Amino acid sequence: MSTDLLTQMLRGLPHARLLGLRVVGTGAATATLAAPYDPRLVGDPDTGVIHGGVVTTLLDTCCGLAILCAPQAPRSCATLDLRIDYMRPARPGLDLIARADCHRLARAIAFVRAVAWDVSEDDPVAFAAGVFVVAQEGEA
Amino acid sequence: MSTDLLTQMLRGLPHARLLGLRVVGTGAATATLAAPYDPRLVGDPDTGVIHGGVVTTLLDTCCGLAILCAPQAPRSCATLDLRIDYMRPARPGLDLIARADCHRLARAIAFVRAVAWDVSEDDPVAFAAGVFVVAQEGEA
Amino acid sequence: MSTDLLTQMLRGLPHARLLGLRVVGTGAATATLAAPYDPRLVGDPDTGVIHGGVVTTLLDTCCGLAILCAPQAPRSCATLDLRIDYMRPARPGLDLIARADCHRLARAIAFVRAVAWDVSEDDPVAFAAGVFVVAQEGEA
Amino acid sequence: MSTDLLTQMLRGLPHARLLGLRVVGTGAATATLAAPYDPRLVGDPDTGVIHGGVVTTLLDTCCGLAILCAPQAPRSCATLDLRIDYMRPARPGLDLIARADCHRLARAIAFVRAVAWDVSEDDPVAFAAGVFVVAQEGEA
Repeated sequence: MSTDLLTQMLRGLPHARLLGLRVVGTGAATATLAAPYDPRLVGDPDTGVIHGGVVTTLLDTCCGLAILCAPQAPRSCATLDLRIDYMRPARPGLDLIARADCHRLARAIAFVRAVAWDVSEDDPVAFAAGVFVVAQEGEA
Repeated sequence: MSTDLLTQMLRGLPHARLLGLRVVGTGAATATLAAPYDPRLVGDPDTGVIHGGVVTTLLDTCCGLAILCAPQAPRSCATLDLRIDYMRPARPGLDLIARADCHRLARAIAFVRAVAWDVSEDDPVAFAAGVFVVAQEGEA
Repeated sequence: MSTDLLTQMLRGLPHARLLGLRVVGTGAATATLAAPYDPRLVGDPDTGVIHGGVVTTLLDTCCGLAILCAPQAPRSCATLDLRIDYMRPARPGLDLIARADCHRLARAIAFVRAVAWDVSEDDPVAFAAGVFVVAQEGEA
Repeated sequence: MSTDLLTQMLRGLPHARLLGLRVVGTGAATATLAAPYDPRLVGDPDTGVIHGGVVTTLLDTCCGLAILCAPQAPRSCATLDLRIDYMRPARPGLDLIARADCHRLARAIAFVRAVAWDVSEDDPVAFAAGVFVVAQEGEA
């Protein structure tokens, strides 16, 4: 799926719009998104650190889009479960980037992993591992 | 911690304000929050279902507040990891409720579980299990 | 499924036999198993504490059997993912008990939770939450 | 930590001996273990596939040893939580290999990831992500 098509899809999601998520890049079974730093998304007013829920929402959304970028992509997908490991707080003032890879896509299930960072992917803010249910074209 | 004090704390979190989260009740090592249905929080425009990231943010926030409601509550806490199991989509138009229980609080670590529902707690939307790092009064 | 039938099924699993797992009870979508204390299962020779992997194996097996005890039970099931939270070490010399409940069984997927303890269920050793893929009678 | 020293440590764990686990290699904050195929470890007698609990025990043990191989390694560590994603059944007759990396080691907490495979690491059997509590030299 092209970056333009994915951008259009992302813009169709009201909550992604509210958080200001945007597509940074796509590839085969992979998607990269960004969440701009925004005072409305702060979780800790003393430090200005973004709320962990924003990190999770970014990772979750990114995982779903990575599945839709897979060859033989399903028509739709929904999160079945998600595990987030938080390495460190995101740095105030910096955009968050997340890249997700769908590393296994079966008939009814997709496995996805993702990482979020601010300065460098080598110093991640959080990791995610998730399982999604997928529906193929023509399925209910 | 009283419901009033927790409400005040929650209002201090910009992202919780953006999502409209509010305290419904508190108890020993437990907190109950609500997220009102809001078109800006929708994840699937075809169905009007709330974005899974909102469910996660509600559960994550609720877990943190449950820890702060524990006897011998720590001064602060931060999510180390979180697992979310999504049972079913939340029903469009209904508020989401979440209750979290801190079922073990050690010196540096707290274990928390939570459940989110719309109509009835017996028909949950999602479950969460998480581990938080906690800092005691006087610690860095 | 009766306790006798489940016992027969469990005895058919070589690794469950090696660990000495036995069925303690069954119900609708629930199963209770025990793992006897055994020096061969120790993970820490200084303390005599059972290896965490034994706790996990007990919980994983118990989750699978709970699914097979559900009304409209599938023909077979396989673990898709499993999260284990360890509350405390098991006490040396005591049997481990685990009870699992399949709290949601869909067409292709089952959600299960389980708890393991030694002295009392109120003082658990570990919790598990997992998702299994299930195959119905007649499916490949 | 040298492969010899780690082998000696692993041999001191009764349950690792029962399963036949052996050290394949070590490095900075990383360890590679093997579990030989053994009919006693089978979980499904119809297929001869190894029990998922063995995969988990291998991954859990490997994670702990990777932490003890870290520079500034702690004196000891214990699993706090572990998530396992099963990609596919292990192939009957083949040894299982697992490699774990401790990718973050803080004062009280270590984050670890691991992968298990039989034929090739590019076609994994399972992934693990876990958090361990660590105790430094001199701590209780």
